[in-house]
Amino acid sequence: MNTQTIESELNAATVVEAASSAYPRLRSELNPTPLLEYAGLNRLVGGRLLLKPENLQRTGSFKIRGALNALDSCLPVAQETGVVAWSSGNHAQGVALAARLRGVQAHIVMPEDAPPAKRTSTERLGAIVIPYDRYTENREAIAMAKAAELGAPVIPSYDHPAVIAGQASIGLELIADPRVADAAPEQVLVCCGGGGLSAGIASVLSFNWPQTRVYAVEPSAADDTVRSLAEGRRVANPSDTRSVCDALLTPTPGALTFPINQALLAGGVSVTDEEALYTVGYARRECRLVLEPGGAVALAAALHNKIDVRDRTTVIILSGGNVDDEMLARGCDIYDRAPALE
Amino acid sequence: MNTQTIESELNAATVVEAASSAYPRLRSELNPTPLLEYAGLNRLVGGRLLLKPENLQRTGSFKIRGALNALDSCLPVAQETGVVAWSSGNHAQGVALAARLRGVQAHIVMPEDAPPAKRTSTERLGAIVIPYDRYTENREAIAMAKAAELGAPVIPSYDHPAVIAGQASIGLELIADPRVADAAPEQVLVCCGGGGLSAGIASVLSFNWPQTRVYAVEPSAADDTVRSLAEGRRVANPSDTRSVCDALLTPTPGALTFPINQALLAGGVSVTDEEALYTVGYARRECRLVLEPGGAVALAAALHNKIDVRDRTTVIILSGGNVDDEMLARGCDIYDRAPALE
Repeated sequence: MNTQTIESELNAATVVEAASSAYPRLRSELNPTPLLEYAGLNRLVGGRLLLKPENLQRTGSFKIRGALNALDSCLPVAQETGVVAWSSGNHAQGVALAARLRGVQAHIVMPEDAPPAKRTSTERLGAIVIPYDRYTENREAIAMAKAAELGAPVIPSYDHPAVIAGQASIGLELIADPRVADAAPEQVLVCCGGGGLSAGIASVLSFNWPQTRVYAVEPSAADDTVRSLAEGRRVANPSDTRSVCDALLTPTPGALTFPINQALLAGGVSVTDEEALYTVGYARRECRLVLEPGGAVALAAALHNKIDVRDRTTVIILSGGNVDDEMLARGCDIYDRAPALE
Repeated sequence: MNTQTIESELNAATVVEAASSAYPRLRSELNPTPLLEYAGLNRLVGGRLLLKPENLQRTGSFKIRGALNALDSCLPVAQETGVVAWSSGNHAQGVALAARLRGVQAHIVMPEDAPPAKRTSTERLGAIVIPYDRYTENREAIAMAKAAELGAPVIPSYDHPAVIAGQASIGLELIADPRVADAAPEQVLVCCGGGGLSAGIASVLSFNWPQTRVYAVEPSAADDTVRSLAEGRRVANPSDTRSVCDALLTPTPGALTFPINQALLAGGVSVTDEEALYTVGYARRECRLVLEPGGAVALAAALHNKIDVRDRTTVIILSGGNVDDEMLARGCDIYDRAPALE
């Protein structure tokens, strides 16, 4: 992949064109996720929140969208060689399912300390998992070596035009959703790791809902996009970053995703691990939704006033729900013990 | 209410007419629930399962549909007098939310041993809870006394034309769902307590999908509809019936619901508490769905071969998700310890 060439050509218009072209092919493999609304939640925040539960997407996160689109872009070669990816878990499962759907062998480089549920699910989808040490080894180098050995294409988790176009399918679903047919929402809050999801959604909305403000939400321990937006250049997270939001622990905003996010996002905010866990508990208790902390940060931003949601309509992307029992119980415990939000 | 008169007039055609008329008014207060599909689940059962997650409906079960429609049928009187209902929990929350939406005071007779989460949620919706002993007192008598005292209408949990028509809105959503636009599913499995949900859905499908077989699924400890269908008359559950499926512990099929179910259902099956709990665990682990045991029995019937789902499309209604942590953990524990299903 010649990143320089692609980077110069990739912008909101090309993302939307690619997403629109891909969507009919992706759609038949996706779970339709509605916009859910809860009276209690609206009262709590004093505004209207519409939740898009991508935790109910196949494999439990939105990642199948981009993974499948990227895999389709390298067929039929991948059917001969297999594909390689690296991921803390959700992209891994997305690639594994995409590969199974297309008859491709997936090889996934995954941290040794990834949640066991994510590793097990990836293997059950037929993928070969290659473990590595998150703190001493370089996952990208390991994946590239494997890809070279096999002659196989790599499916990055965010910094790839077809991945961004796949995630943009959420934007296409939003603009077609009957619940917002009468009026575009004022705001959309998107969980952000490498920025592929926010770049994809913001690209679509920039054409269809130009007045809608799209915000990236990150864990405060890995707020590289927040800081990069503030500084006007891509800055990295510390290599030893730790957070319960394992799905969002990317080293740096993407070379392809950041320029789009920089051009289109209204801003970025971050939430603490405690706030993300509280929100995991809230979603379990009040909405019967199983979220992982990284999938809950956008809702956490609304619950904890990081973005003003009063007296307006805000769409919240719930990006994933692959959470172990202990983490879910931690979230419920924090929620149960917390004083009621005003 | 003159039940004799209504009973003689109530049939599938009048249910569908009432549901079609009510739906535009109900719809704006409902969460749209999609049909979810999971590759792993399809592989497991050797057929295509489409899950309608009414656990994501407002208040965590489908009950808001019938409760709101019934409340609307007795406005504006109820705004002066309040309304009275009895329920183990899900109908209670449905009535409480409906009452809040319409500015009505709800009074709910609820068993002392109802799951704490259900009682708390009902009270937080503004309802007044009147507790009673499930094993020694008659909830209907208590509710009727309260209604007489207030001069208020009663909203029964299933045996009422407007309640059945409200639940029938699920049938209207099924026939309009793009996922089954090409071909009607061969089967629909519906969790069954008093039979309002199955009667409502079967009424709609009898006109629109006449070849589709609709089955009621009950807990084996409260299989009154299964036995009533077999005997051709309404038979009761023992008064001391106990099951983890608290949402389905009705004394007997309804006078209004049973004739419709008798005419339209392809049959009824039951699942054990263990099978229902296993399914609660399956849904949490594999689909990121929070179900209560009573809301899981239809899926349990598919997972445990009570209905043959191989090589065909089966819609499964997941009817509710108001489950306490302990019960959810019990389900996960049973699922984790069970040998893998073939």
